[in-house]
Amino acid sequence: MADASTHPILRDDALEDYLARTADRRLESYKALLRIPSVSGIPAHAADCRAAAEFIAADLGEIGLEHVEICETGGHPVVYADWLHAAGKPTVLVYAHYDVQPVDPVDLWESPPFVPVVKEGRMLARGSSDCKCHVAMHARAVEALLATRKSLPVNLKFAFEGEEESSSVHLDAWLEANRERLKADFAVISDTSFFEGNLPAITIALRGLLYFQLDVTGSRLDLHSGVYGGAVDNPANALCAIVAALKGPDGRVKVPGFYDDVVELSELDRQAFAALPLDQEGYREGIGVPAFFGEPGFTILEQLGARPTLDVNGIWGGFEGEGAKTIIPAHAHAKISCRLVANQEPERIFELIAAYVAEVAPKSIRYSFQRLGDGRPSLTPIDHPATQAAARAIESTFGVSPLYIREGGSVPVCASFESILGLSTVLLGFAPADGQFHAPNEWMWMSNFETGIRTIARYWDEVEGLKLP
Amino acid sequence: MADASTHPILRDDALEDYLARTADRRLESYKALLRIPSVSGIPAHAADCRAAAEFIAADLGEIGLEHVEICETGGHPVVYADWLHAAGKPTVLVYAHYDVQPVDPVDLWESPPFVPVVKEGRMLARGSSDCKCHVAMHARAVEALLATRKSLPVNLKFAFEGEEESSSVHLDAWLEANRERLKADFAVISDTSFFEGNLPAITIALRGLLYFQLDVTGSRLDLHSGVYGGAVDNPANALCAIVAALKGPDGRVKVPGFYDDVVELSELDRQAFAALPLDQEGYREGIGVPAFFGEPGFTILEQLGARPTLDVNGIWGGFEGEGAKTIIPAHAHAKISCRLVANQEPERIFELIAAYVAEVAPKSIRYSFQRLGDGRPSLTPIDHPATQAAARAIESTFGVSPLYIREGGSVPVCASFESILGLSTVLLGFAPADGQFHAPNEWMWMSNFETGIRTIARYWDEVEGLKLP
Repeated sequence: MADASTHPILRDDALEDYLARTADRRLESYKALLRIPSVSGIPAHAADCRAAAEFIAADLGEIGLEHVEICETGGHPVVYADWLHAAGKPTVLVYAHYDVQPVDPVDLWESPPFVPVVKEGRMLARGSSDCKCHVAMHARAVEALLATRKSLPVNLKFAFEGEEESSSVHLDAWLEANRERLKADFAVISDTSFFEGNLPAITIALRGLLYFQLDVTGSRLDLHSGVYGGAVDNPANALCAIVAALKGPDGRVKVPGFYDDVVELSELDRQAFAALPLDQEGYREGIGVPAFFGEPGFTILEQLGARPTLDVNGIWGGFEGEGAKTIIPAHAHAKISCRLVANQEPERIFELIAAYVAEVAPKSIRYSFQRLGDGRPSLTPIDHPATQAAARAIESTFGVSPLYIREGGSVPVCASFESILGLSTVLLGFAPADGQFHAPNEWMWMSNFETGIRTIARYWDEVEGLKLP
Repeated sequence: MADASTHPILRDDALEDYLARTADRRLESYKALLRIPSVSGIPAHAADCRAAAEFIAADLGEIGLEHVEICETGGHPVVYADWLHAAGKPTVLVYAHYDVQPVDPVDLWESPPFVPVVKEGRMLARGSSDCKCHVAMHARAVEALLATRKSLPVNLKFAFEGEEESSSVHLDAWLEANRERLKADFAVISDTSFFEGNLPAITIALRGLLYFQLDVTGSRLDLHSGVYGGAVDNPANALCAIVAALKGPDGRVKVPGFYDDVVELSELDRQAFAALPLDQEGYREGIGVPAFFGEPGFTILEQLGARPTLDVNGIWGGFEGEGAKTIIPAHAHAKISCRLVANQEPERIFELIAAYVAEVAPKSIRYSFQRLGDGRPSLTPIDHPATQAAARAIESTFGVSPLYIREGGSVPVCASFESILGLSTVLLGFAPADGQFHAPNEWMWMSNFETGIRTIARYWDEVEGLKLP
């Protein structure tokens, strides 16, 4: 742990006063951003996305950020801004996104999705938690720091994206083209949530992905199962045999070398997992499965967050209609994906799987692979100085130590920051776990919004003293 | 072997003279039947099917058969007729069908399908080989016998069906309702073909069928493979594991007891298989598979004809579209069928499979079965007296001993004759193996037609002396 752990955190009265004085304006500004229907996936909303970018750019300029630019990407723009006058101090790249999901089915909304209202402490609106809150919180934290101190404790670069909800189609190219401008010591991505029950949490890991299709072929055409059955292999049976060979009945992937590069859990990691409250039986019933199933030696949350998987996402071949058709299918197919964890490399894992399939596949069929997508896993350890700084900022504002959670899914932008920009990432988000992202009646705790602004401001103070690798 | 093997077969000059005299009329009668487009599967041809039945009924009455009846079935009628004056002699039930397959794609026919023409020794027409030839041949054989002797050597009952090409929907009910009338010592079904190269052959066995669907379910809805992957079983993976457990990599079914009731091959059976010429490499290339695959210890033809199978006919679950969708499917399904051989009972085999699946299925999923069809296998051994009588009739007319072949497929009517009427069956058919049944340009060797009429007449003489069990 860095010596930053002893960095003195003092209550910043000037900052608190400023925030108290500007509360109404802050709420109105957040609402104004939420009123812009910046749905990136619907072409008719392209002008709204640009309007949101312009709103943010104007805001960032007004509060004193520099080099504010609406960067063209070929799609919806990225809003860039920076403040780089903290000589000798760390530089942090901050990411959030201003685009939102579509609102259908719109009749399930209790109030219109782009008419933000606060009800019982919640801001109701599309984008309130995913993730315009974070754009606004970062802006307000920096505003308060610059207003009260005329400077920031660290160098900050902001990149607010407009295409996260439509696969970030143009982001990687923009990152590639702006590698120099985006140089930093680490990145903060604010697009995650607290743990269930609104327990403050830091996401320390995301799983990666390897996705491929396995195509098995036998005869030229479907064969009559009576005329040919018994002397000819069946691609569907063969596919099942290959798939069954990939994973054991205990849930462990049987591909030799599959686990070789997996970062094993430290005692600290296991304590962090154990600290997470989980109602196992309620969780199981909610999913509707008769029993859990996973790699032995790991808790459910460890299996979900810290261990790689191998799952069939789709399988097909032969006759799927009503009734009976007596054929030996000419071909059968499976889409298979692995969730990967640090430090598994998708390319290496694919090579291992391909080599193993070559070994176990019957010689009486032919097969081939199609690669359908890769994503690197990401892990910023609990004891990384930037993570610990975030933990202290949360504790000093929310009053509790954060939980450390791992997302089972993949966040492509995080992998891009690591692979294109070479940056470690702290995932610092304040959304409620049950914030109805992507669904009707999306909402954000206003208390998280308000406290989170203070957390972010504190975080930059915490980061100031870090000695980063 | 019955003492009938020493029954004197004399050349029947009167019969030969009669057949020589009536050759033109016989050809015209066959053509007249072929001109009737009795396509049973197309409702617009219902009247044609009835016309064919009426044509046959009139024919059978004219040649001296009795109790001729166009029997209503609820669908296309069965033509029944008999001759029962051979007191103390065997009674044989003779089956063929007068309905035909549709003719599409009609533009691939070299001549119109219902305008029969003889070209290079072949009768070209829809139904020429499947199976109006057999209706005509049986009628002509009996005509010649009755014309020259005023009697038949055995008692014969004819049932010519009109729905064989449309799943014999009404046949079982008609058989049930006519059990008494159809009593016989054994049945002759004439709807099969010679071996490739037009080598005379008797089909001694047909495989049965057990067809079911296995439905595996996991979660209530498809799950995000990142959020849930690792702690929840995947119905598609589980289905693959179950399917893979059913059959070993050597092609042997692994369900305990599966082979218990299988009639093992005798030395005679193995000799009969060994006598069948097969160009293995040409056969493999024709199918397009990289290698054969089947139960060890059996030749390809033995695997196809005398051994049971287990094949996936269709499998599906989850995402089948273009690209990648990262889900754990909520359910996955497989249609699975077994070809059965004597004396496997479909019901018993299903019970064995169900018990085995109960053992191997993971407890982390649920599953259920749907039964989608059963069919009993059939076997009339080579050394059955009625088979040996047919062999002698073939040898004395075609001049060579027949081969004994087994059809890998199932002929439901054969199973119905066994299960409803309790009859053993001799499959005595004369179609060319490559007669383009069900395809454009269906054809029949006129030499098989002519010689086959003599074979049938001889057969009744051979059967006369049989001591049947």
